[in-house]
Amino acid sequence: MALAPGTDTGTDTGTAARTDARTDALARLAEERVDHRFKGLPPDAYGLTVGELTAQRRDLFTGGFTTPVLALSAERLEHNLRLMETYAARHGLLFAPHGKTSMAPRLFQRQIEHGAWGITLAVPHQVRVARAFGVRRVFLANELVDAAALRWIAAEQDSDPEFRFLCYVDSVRGVELMDAALREAGAARPVDVVVELAAGAGARTGVRTEAECAVVADAVQAVPSLRLAGVAGYEGEVPDAGPEKVRAWLRRLVALAADFDAAGRFAAAGLDEIVVSAGGSAWFDAVADVFAELPALSVPVLKLLRSGAYVSHDDGHYREITPFNRVPEEGALEPAFRLWSQVVSRPSPEQAFTNAGKRDAAYDLHLPFAQVIRGGDGAERPATGVEVTGLSDQHAWLRTAPAAELEVGDWVGMGLSHPCTSFDKWQLIPVTEADGTVVDYVRTFF
Amino acid sequence: MALAPGTDTGTDTGTAARTDARTDALARLAEERVDHRFKGLPPDAYGLTVGELTAQRRDLFTGGFTTPVLALSAERLEHNLRLMETYAARHGLLFAPHGKTSMAPRLFQRQIEHGAWGITLAVPHQVRVARAFGVRRVFLANELVDAAALRWIAAEQDSDPEFRFLCYVDSVRGVELMDAALREAGAARPVDVVVELAAGAGARTGVRTEAECAVVADAVQAVPSLRLAGVAGYEGEVPDAGPEKVRAWLRRLVALAADFDAAGRFAAAGLDEIVVSAGGSAWFDAVADVFAELPALSVPVLKLLRSGAYVSHDDGHYREITPFNRVPEEGALEPAFRLWSQVVSRPSPEQAFTNAGKRDAAYDLHLPFAQVIRGGDGAERPATGVEVTGLSDQHAWLRTAPAAELEVGDWVGMGLSHPCTSFDKWQLIPVTEADGTVVDYVRTFF
Repeated sequence: MALAPGTDTGTDTGTAARTDARTDALARLAEERVDHRFKGLPPDAYGLTVGELTAQRRDLFTGGFTTPVLALSAERLEHNLRLMETYAARHGLLFAPHGKTSMAPRLFQRQIEHGAWGITLAVPHQVRVARAFGVRRVFLANELVDAAALRWIAAEQDSDPEFRFLCYVDSVRGVELMDAALREAGAARPVDVVVELAAGAGARTGVRTEAECAVVADAVQAVPSLRLAGVAGYEGEVPDAGPEKVRAWLRRLVALAADFDAAGRFAAAGLDEIVVSAGGSAWFDAVADVFAELPALSVPVLKLLRSGAYVSHDDGHYREITPFNRVPEEGALEPAFRLWSQVVSRPSPEQAFTNAGKRDAAYDLHLPFAQVIRGGDGAERPATGVEVTGLSDQHAWLRTAPAAELEVGDWVGMGLSHPCTSFDKWQLIPVTEADGTVVDYVRTFF
Repeated sequence: MALAPGTDTGTDTGTAARTDARTDALARLAEERVDHRFKGLPPDAYGLTVGELTAQRRDLFTGGFTTPVLALSAERLEHNLRLMETYAARHGLLFAPHGKTSMAPRLFQRQIEHGAWGITLAVPHQVRVARAFGVRRVFLANELVDAAALRWIAAEQDSDPEFRFLCYVDSVRGVELMDAALREAGAARPVDVVVELAAGAGARTGVRTEAECAVVADAVQAVPSLRLAGVAGYEGEVPDAGPEKVRAWLRRLVALAADFDAAGRFAAAGLDEIVVSAGGSAWFDAVADVFAELPALSVPVLKLLRSGAYVSHDDGHYREITPFNRVPEEGALEPAFRLWSQVVSRPSPEQAFTNAGKRDAAYDLHLPFAQVIRGGDGAERPATGVEVTGLSDQHAWLRTAPAAELEVGDWVGMGLSHPCTSFDKWQLIPVTEADGTVVDYVRTFF
């Protein structure tokens, strides 16, 4: 991606080493055997490596895949990766997409190839996954007070000078626990922390007021095991969020960075860049606007966007709330998932059941959406008059209108809502071109 | 288990071979490396085999495990396994616990050691997992019309004479699709099928009326690739279920078996036992009562119970609906899961957040229940005044009463509701004794 002016991404050092580590681990993924660990894959492929199966370029519909099977569109995935790369660059933002969405090292790699500065994660186990695949920069969007995890982070930092790690702090108690654990671990490098400003009263994590933020920053500055690296938060939790409320909170965040800078806090920490970060998948247009207003500080500012859901996008929640609905001139994300399941029962004219359930489809924000039907002849038709009305553990309940053509054996292609709870139900996901050819397999680690 | 009189479980043949296959595959599980695939495990154990880590008998709280981590109580698990073994034996039932609940071969093994006839499953992928670990008898509680999966099942049956497989049929169309796929696969052994009687109008899968059941049975009997092995259904989907409605449906199922037998259908199939199966986790008392009323048929009847949730039981949905609430003199299941997560934020007196979310805890039937708090000193206290009010992907939202003692760094032990959506969020689950010693690890395959 085109780098934002005035930022130092550090990509000029260590790129080769990082690429090697990532490439090696990713190459080993292609050596995994197709076996009972991975649902939906062709039984006659058991024993092949994933790489060998990829090379066969099987057809999703005639290549022996069993239902239910989740497919990721190759073209739409690539489109989404490019669109957010372009978006971030256009708005002078660096990008650390939230990796919790996919937990797929192959997608982390592609995000980084598409210009991402690093990967955002939520819990230490996810950092472990990223590190196993050579990700060099990790933004942990949580306070981390787990002593065992901090010991591991410290060892990871101390053994790899190129590992850049940041996490939240939102309490003096948290600072004390981090410091105690890092001292006990004998950490040589301080851990970079950003003070998390809460999105409002009753919102999720984060310090509630600017005055308390200063107290937490004081605590950070009092311990050598931590370094104050910036400020951050998550506008997605602004109560009763709307464009004005979200912008108002983002302005508070930006002002906090400026106030901390003016107070000499970042100079005291010896920073060569100040991190200011926000941005989920609902309001990155507001983040871009407000971060653009950020005045020059004492050193360059790393404006870090953390949206994650864009990678697959969806047919429900994120389709409704994506900022591109407000700025269509900047593009549009495309839903990349389609869950294929098979009708196993058609007990009455009003009912049908397929073999995909809670184990296979997201159900926390919307039920799946029946989109297309594929009959035994391979022809696809719209799923007119077919609606998913419920999920059991292993069944989808479909209500069918009198005119709906649907019979036992048909495959039903469904759109999903919420990428995070779709990816996490599949460990090896076929990436499929529009003509049905499976060209890649995405391995996830949840 | 004590076998029910008049049943032929076939356990006298092939046990050695089955045990070997299962033991080998299970032994290989102990050789898996602890690495980024498994969340919650101690970072300083990365690189050990699971067997080596087991031998260390670490403490869940002081042994370096990271939060969130789900623990399964060793004692409660054993209690539940024994209780249902005893229950089934007492009521003259054979038992094929639903393996979809745990998808854990080690638990399948223990269920079989505790007298289970076989394992019930829902989709072909799950059968693949069971077969990879040597499970010899599988009841697939679904119609199976997927040609690729049927090809694999046929090959599995033809290569292993001791593999006993049954699945549902609930439509003539389903029979036709199965027959076409099995003929094309060149299957040598017929596939045993049971006609599924629906639990009522508007219920889930299954043939709606006895007259239609006869039509489906006719279709089965007309094709040599299938063998009519019995009747089955799932009383858990009886609309507006109550003891009388459930019993009324079970009597219909039993009468259907008797009618099919009187019509010579099972004799025509050359059966040496007739399968009659029902039984989830809400009404097995009714199943036991009504199956006891089954008159003698032309050959012995294999009365097969399929409950699955009992293995871990829970602190929510199944605690409320377990039949043992109606027959306390027969025992009580014990909730065996506890999810430990850590307070990462305490932004106000009314709020706290832990690091477990939708990725870690079941949330489809109830939210988790805060039960105990474990402070930095290792002392546990009841989670008085602490309530889980919501889950984000990676956070639990806790509301705290004024008197609640809870601070950043504390571990919160939570009970869960719905075993099926708890197991499926964890791939390697520490089995922990009451004193905190981890004595085993349960691997799941979802």
